[in-house]
Amino acid sequence: MTTTAAESWEVLVAAHRERQRQSIPNEWLLDDAKLAALKGTGSSDEGRLIQLDAVSQSGLLSQAELDITSNFAAHELVDKLARGELSSEDVVRAYCKRAALAQQLTSCLTEIFFDEALERAKSLDAQFKATGIVSGPLHGLPISLKDSYNVKGKYSTAGYTALLRRPVPEDNAAIVNLLLDAGAVMYCKTNVPQTMMTADSDNNIFGRTLNPHNTKLTAGGSTGGEGALVAFRGSPLGVGSDIAGSIRIPSFCCGIYGFKPTVDRVPFSGQTSSPAPEMHLAGIKPAAGPMANSVDDLVLFMKTVLGKRPWKYDATAIDSPWRSVAYAGTKPLTIGLLPEDPEYLLQPPVRRALETAAALLEKAGHTIVRLPAEPTCSVGLGGKLGFQFFFLPGGDLAGLADALGEPLVPSVAKGVHPFMDGKFPIAQDKDLLHKWSDWTDVADQYADAWRETWVQHGLDVLLAPGAGTTACPHDAFGNPVYTLMWNVLNYPAGILPFGFASKKKDPEFQKHEAFFDPDYEPEVYNGAPCAVQVIAPRFRDEECLHAMTIIDTVLKQHQ
Amino acid sequence: MTTTAAESWEVLVAAHRERQRQSIPNEWLLDDAKLAALKGTGSSDEGRLIQLDAVSQSGLLSQAELDITSNFAAHELVDKLARGELSSEDVVRAYCKRAALAQQLTSCLTEIFFDEALERAKSLDAQFKATGIVSGPLHGLPISLKDSYNVKGKYSTAGYTALLRRPVPEDNAAIVNLLLDAGAVMYCKTNVPQTMMTADSDNNIFGRTLNPHNTKLTAGGSTGGEGALVAFRGSPLGVGSDIAGSIRIPSFCCGIYGFKPTVDRVPFSGQTSSPAPEMHLAGIKPAAGPMANSVDDLVLFMKTVLGKRPWKYDATAIDSPWRSVAYAGTKPLTIGLLPEDPEYLLQPPVRRALETAAALLEKAGHTIVRLPAEPTCSVGLGGKLGFQFFFLPGGDLAGLADALGEPLVPSVAKGVHPFMDGKFPIAQDKDLLHKWSDWTDVADQYADAWRETWVQHGLDVLLAPGAGTTACPHDAFGNPVYTLMWNVLNYPAGILPFGFASKKKDPEFQKHEAFFDPDYEPEVYNGAPCAVQVIAPRFRDEECLHAMTIIDTVLKQHQ
Repeated sequence: MTTTAAESWEVLVAAHRERQRQSIPNEWLLDDAKLAALKGTGSSDEGRLIQLDAVSQSGLLSQAELDITSNFAAHELVDKLARGELSSEDVVRAYCKRAALAQQLTSCLTEIFFDEALERAKSLDAQFKATGIVSGPLHGLPISLKDSYNVKGKYSTAGYTALLRRPVPEDNAAIVNLLLDAGAVMYCKTNVPQTMMTADSDNNIFGRTLNPHNTKLTAGGSTGGEGALVAFRGSPLGVGSDIAGSIRIPSFCCGIYGFKPTVDRVPFSGQTSSPAPEMHLAGIKPAAGPMANSVDDLVLFMKTVLGKRPWKYDATAIDSPWRSVAYAGTKPLTIGLLPEDPEYLLQPPVRRALETAAALLEKAGHTIVRLPAEPTCSVGLGGKLGFQFFFLPGGDLAGLADALGEPLVPSVAKGVHPFMDGKFPIAQDKDLLHKWSDWTDVADQYADAWRETWVQHGLDVLLAPGAGTTACPHDAFGNPVYTLMWNVLNYPAGILPFGFASKKKDPEFQKHEAFFDPDYEPEVYNGAPCAVQVIAPRFRDEECLHAMTIIDTVLKQHQ
Repeated sequence: MTTTAAESWEVLVAAHRERQRQSIPNEWLLDDAKLAALKGTGSSDEGRLIQLDAVSQSGLLSQAELDITSNFAAHELVDKLARGELSSEDVVRAYCKRAALAQQLTSCLTEIFFDEALERAKSLDAQFKATGIVSGPLHGLPISLKDSYNVKGKYSTAGYTALLRRPVPEDNAAIVNLLLDAGAVMYCKTNVPQTMMTADSDNNIFGRTLNPHNTKLTAGGSTGGEGALVAFRGSPLGVGSDIAGSIRIPSFCCGIYGFKPTVDRVPFSGQTSSPAPEMHLAGIKPAAGPMANSVDDLVLFMKTVLGKRPWKYDATAIDSPWRSVAYAGTKPLTIGLLPEDPEYLLQPPVRRALETAAALLEKAGHTIVRLPAEPTCSVGLGGKLGFQFFFLPGGDLAGLADALGEPLVPSVAKGVHPFMDGKFPIAQDKDLLHKWSDWTDVADQYADAWRETWVQHGLDVLLAPGAGTTACPHDAFGNPVYTLMWNVLNYPAGILPFGFASKKKDPEFQKHEAFFDPDYEPEVYNGAPCAVQVIAPRFRDEECLHAMTIIDTVLKQHQ
């Protein structure tokens, strides 16, 4: 499986792409003409794969397979599997086929192991048939994974060509072992950006993942492959990770549900590691979490994971069980509304979605508290703290291409830290220890200011945009301040899809304010999914998801 | 309240000692002859204040005050206060008097504010009389605090003379506000070592705290004032902090109960800060926790604190409620027994206490698993990781006295990092970022090895010594490897007192193994309290305290 350093990255990539193609059964591969037709090439709806119903048009899935993948959420599938109304083999095959099609249309996959998945599915079916007992709460359910989670025997490159030179992992990531023990079936891993630090899932091995709502728009990142695959319903449940928005950005870009839990409630260990020198500063850590097509599926994932006692799989996981939330159902919510930061303008569809959601929730009997714009709690301060943290050791892009041994993709090359202009919250001209000490002080003040705001207003959750934009053109996504601030605070935060950008409802062009943000152009963004972000304080994951359930119900009644 | 830098530290200290003396009512001050008599000066039992019953002999407390302070645990006092069977004024006055005596015999206090405590007690009594409603679960209970917790308007020097030049804090520490909201009465703060990083609570402002069991032995540290005060029953419940053993060492030295929770479950913010440059490396953090005369009082503290939702008081506190433990009571425990590390020998009384406890627990129906000596889980590796972490930025003692502007006390001067001999787990000759990255990797492996051991043996808790020694002669305490390893792992850990060192039962001299550890001399250690340490994995604080309750019941039946 290893290769010599003498081979160029281009040779390695060509071989790996061929391996990937061969991992899809020939009878599931469509020719170029058919694919062009499915994409609506040349038509006014070109690239709107969901609107064009490319799945039905492909003829690849049987009616039963279309039904399984189109009409049931993950929690409904596990119920049917546990009652013996569906076999795991049928469910897994249906999702493998749909994922194969998604891959051909959006380049959302990395490693593909349908054969092994079908073997496992058959074995689970046989076991269930023999005993009548399910193997766990996810018995027979296919689950997809961001590429960075190690799966034994599968490449774990995260899109770095240098990692094609490494041996494949000998162990599963902790979450993989946990999900297998819960009865799940692994069948594929999904695409990410080079460096995993941009919102465009594009790299030199697997290419660029496209947004199935509109292939001219980004699918988001870094868990962009997962976003595209779940939106295409090529996966009922995916696992992502989020240190600045990497679960939430692809979720709102692709119009799906995503949840970034409090750090370490879901086991994170067993990741691939970057070939560039890595940073181990504490302060902001990535969180593993689910992406799906319903809030109930996010809850299914969290309850299942926490029910398996994650610490048994991962010493870094927090050993705190799932709590049933006491105030469930009856009491109206007190919902804070995050004020728009004039430095980081919301585009008209984002603003409209947020205001519409607030109005609907108020009408449904919940209390909306319009928070004042406090500099101590600002979006900008949180975003800047986040970016400054990532670059505390002084990293920059100058030597990155050489360190990686491959060219930078456009979204990396344009720079992921354009805040680096002297306007940082803390002085840069100190040694690492003192910079970090200063950073910690300011971050602690920020956390305390947010705590005070929260307590003062008696908030249950906060309603906010996921970003200034919806999915935008490729390589145009700005700095993710509206997601990153919650990583700085380590607050659980989830995305609820809510409507679409509309050139009719949002007809006015809007110039960006922050230089890194894109302009809003009604024609370009038309039809892009809109969403809201729901946030709760650290460790209130249960309350966050409970409120998401309530809010989603209100918003769905309107749609 | 502030002073000019021109004044020498000696002048500042003299003034502060005078202020301290004046904060004790004159009628509670005993003359030197009386104090010498209470100490048994010249007798064979000299300094054995508890055995000599110095409290009764002093004549300072009425029979009712002796009864209140001697015969009830904190949870019994709050029950009586809530039923109106005792007034807060009577309880607080009794404890103030006993604390005043403890101070004169053991130098355990720093800031003393009995007057304000009595005012608050009267006000709580009046409120209770008028409404019949208690102000909270700790209504009327006096609680003492380690000096490092800020109390509004009180000096917070932690024994650093330089901090006498600072203004007094304008805010309470978060835990102080929380405990006040729960109805507690603050009446004094307690002594610590200079630097808070030794096990001898000795500094240039308040002098050396003595062990009330035997004033020739250390009271431990860094929460040593609290240890002496609680053991003398001059406080029903104290608050300490522990980053290497600072709650647990004084607890076993002084024969009381102490609990170090998982980091940040008890709010920690609002501490005094060292005048020397401070370190903000993540990896090992201090934990706030209780010290008391029963396990039930440790539980009272934890349930009360977690019941008040600590995050509302402190943004760094983990927002995870107290859990009632499901397996309570009925199921026998599976208890791992930590193997003695031959590099860090247990003294005979410590070994005897541990083996006796294990035998009694086995006899009572619990399962004792004698863990094998695995290098990956060794005491030494944990201890060395802990010490290397504290000195990662390269700190040493060379410039410390100058930085502090005062001489070093003996326990600090002799060096708190004698592991610094090249035998560290990771190489020292790298820059901070790489040292830290390496340290994190090794610490993660250590945590994972312990997780595997725990899961493999199906442990509920671990039984271990608190240190190689009991309380030992002043300035002789070695490196606290048997406590520090659990800080490295962030495992909750508590101390249960269990018997005493005995020159009859432990008659053999034993030479130390580690060069920093003291020899065991039967005559010197005779009568020192023994103890066991009980440990559970991260976030299993509830299970740890539940097992401590079960184990304590078994051990008490034997005593």
